[in-house]
Amino acid sequence: MVNAELVNGQTLQPQEREVDHPSSLVALFGKDQPLSLDCGVDLAPFQIAYQTYGTLNAERSNAILVCHALTMDQHMANVHPVTGKPGGWLAMIGPGQPIDTDRFFVICPNVIGGCMGSTGPASTNPDTGKPWGLDFPIVTIPDMVRAQAMLLDRLGIDTLFAVVGGSMGGMQVLQWCVAYPQRVFSALPIACATRHSAQNIAFHELGRQAVMADPDWQQGRYFERGTHPHRGLGVARMAAHITYLSDAALHRKFGRRMQDRDLPTFSFDADFQVESYLRHQGSSFVERFDANSYLYLTRAMDYFDIAADHDGVLAKAFRGTRTRFCVVSFTSDWLFPTAESRAIVHALNAGGARVSFAEIETDKGHDAFLLDVPEFIDIARAFLQSAAAARGLTSSGT
Amino acid sequence: MVNAELVNGQTLQPQEREVDHPSSLVALFGKDQPLSLDCGVDLAPFQIAYQTYGTLNAERSNAILVCHALTMDQHMANVHPVTGKPGGWLAMIGPGQPIDTDRFFVICPNVIGGCMGSTGPASTNPDTGKPWGLDFPIVTIPDMVRAQAMLLDRLGIDTLFAVVGGSMGGMQVLQWCVAYPQRVFSALPIACATRHSAQNIAFHELGRQAVMADPDWQQGRYFERGTHPHRGLGVARMAAHITYLSDAALHRKFGRRMQDRDLPTFSFDADFQVESYLRHQGSSFVERFDANSYLYLTRAMDYFDIAADHDGVLAKAFRGTRTRFCVVSFTSDWLFPTAESRAIVHALNAGGARVSFAEIETDKGHDAFLLDVPEFIDIARAFLQSAAAARGLTSSGT
Repeated sequence: MVNAELVNGQTLQPQEREVDHPSSLVALFGKDQPLSLDCGVDLAPFQIAYQTYGTLNAERSNAILVCHALTMDQHMANVHPVTGKPGGWLAMIGPGQPIDTDRFFVICPNVIGGCMGSTGPASTNPDTGKPWGLDFPIVTIPDMVRAQAMLLDRLGIDTLFAVVGGSMGGMQVLQWCVAYPQRVFSALPIACATRHSAQNIAFHELGRQAVMADPDWQQGRYFERGTHPHRGLGVARMAAHITYLSDAALHRKFGRRMQDRDLPTFSFDADFQVESYLRHQGSSFVERFDANSYLYLTRAMDYFDIAADHDGVLAKAFRGTRTRFCVVSFTSDWLFPTAESRAIVHALNAGGARVSFAEIETDKGHDAFLLDVPEFIDIARAFLQSAAAARGLTSSGT
Repeated sequence: MVNAELVNGQTLQPQEREVDHPSSLVALFGKDQPLSLDCGVDLAPFQIAYQTYGTLNAERSNAILVCHALTMDQHMANVHPVTGKPGGWLAMIGPGQPIDTDRFFVICPNVIGGCMGSTGPASTNPDTGKPWGLDFPIVTIPDMVRAQAMLLDRLGIDTLFAVVGGSMGGMQVLQWCVAYPQRVFSALPIACATRHSAQNIAFHELGRQAVMADPDWQQGRYFERGTHPHRGLGVARMAAHITYLSDAALHRKFGRRMQDRDLPTFSFDADFQVESYLRHQGSSFVERFDANSYLYLTRAMDYFDIAADHDGVLAKAFRGTRTRFCVVSFTSDWLFPTAESRAIVHALNAGGARVSFAEIETDKGHDAFLLDVPEFIDIARAFLQSAAAARGLTSSGT
């Protein structure tokens, strides 16, 4: 854990500090460059915090955009400035990894609505000088992608060699291909869907209710009141975390094993290892994530529904696309089961797209996309290498 | 909802009234008849509240014990005294139903640790005159069954014609067959397991943390403080309720349909029908259930592990049993999936038991056991009729 520090005369906790003054590159967009949101609001000014790895080639043709999942952020391949832990996607990004930073220029932006430096509900509202809180407008997955497109314009990158992401990141990948098909050469949407299921909305609503039930949430004004809904957010995280793992993974990791004892205590202590593990997941999450941001990002996922924006016909969304797709799912992922990925593949086929599909056999559940699952990593590597060859990128990325 | 009323000079809410003075028959056990609990405590005095339906025959051979699930109670086939709603298992119990009240004498006790009249954490601790709260000893599934056996002794019933129950009720059925094999002629354990899985413990722990995170929980002393952890218990219920349904059932019932509107509100209102449904499930539950009781009963399920008490060998638990079994699971039940029922069947087979097994095809999830699923009802009826014939019970139950 990185210590609190003084910013503008205020002592801020590490996570609070990152909100307005991130340990990342920042693209500022002024009043004259609003982000036009689906809810009808023009957000301006706003900022996008992002990390980059590798070097943009002279042709500006080797850029890979990596879109992060709900509770991840832009710190994919560097030490995290709040937790001090290694990057969040080292299995995928780095020298010699599938997203090879010796070869590609990798851009990882924090999403709009996030809490690691891109404008979101924890950011300071310039009109009030206080955190936005629930006055922040509702953002959608298309809004996140629109902001990323503005960032790429700012960076002078017209066409992305690839867009890659899992879970909420995969939703952004799909939205990129729908909204800006001509800007995406290849796409790798992983463990995701074109719309959020009723069960997934239910789990998100549960998490939001847990946050909002915490009196310390203070109707979203906790920063000003000096409180923080740690308990509610911790419960929300516990619920979400169960959905990220499979029953088999939980059984393999913990089974019914007791925590540092052989016999039950006959109490409400964390007798079982799985209980202490979940409690730890809850308590560590609240130190690095903003509660309101959690509300906004879960809402964005719930609203996501590509077909709804195309007369209910998913194939229409991808009609005529020239992007090369590789769609990946995991057998034990019950949050975004393989059926969701098959629906993407069917729609892409119907739209005449070039698409490959891989269902990876693993018991690691939804979380598998972040882990070093060799078959998955190999497929990602092969897909990006083949796409790079088709794009005429040499092995050095130039 | 039934109104509050005056008991002993105090205005009690309907649920609070039921705790010590239930609208049920009550068997009182005095200081000389303690319930010997697994945690080492002798609980005395204590009481068991129970409903009965039908008539015990002269041979006392037509009694069916029905064991209730976690959030159910003894009001299986009568109007509920707190909610005013019809009985909880009318699909199974009643005249002409599989558990035919014209033929069988049906006993439905509230479990020890419950909150509808059997002694539990909401009951008055005779030593203090205040609710037990967390001073109540931890109870287990074997404890529940031990108390039921004492009730049957009191009623003069030596052998049960059948023991029937789903979910936590099914755990009690299995425990009956293990602890008192000679007292059970036939057993119908439904949608259950011989031990709680890591994922199920995780969901229970989530629910407990939600309750205990609510400041109104007051370390379990909410009755005395005049508060109630409605928000925490509501969140716990929402989480549990998701696990009771299948993804397919949620999709069929709600899909992504909006609540009384066509377009999203771009807010945290319950835009989706599944959100309002869940909120309703949470808020209605807290009016009829005690929060501490929820902690105790989930804990009892977590601790349940028949094999652990038999050198880790499940078959040992059932060796030599003469009970006739019918084990039932549902294809879309992901809380107690069919694999758990198969494990029961394998152990019974290894123990030389007489067992039939049915996996019912339905998309209704775990909740299916409470619903009018024709194939399930038919199988329950056929099993009980065949067992009744073997028991020499005539169609009138005499």
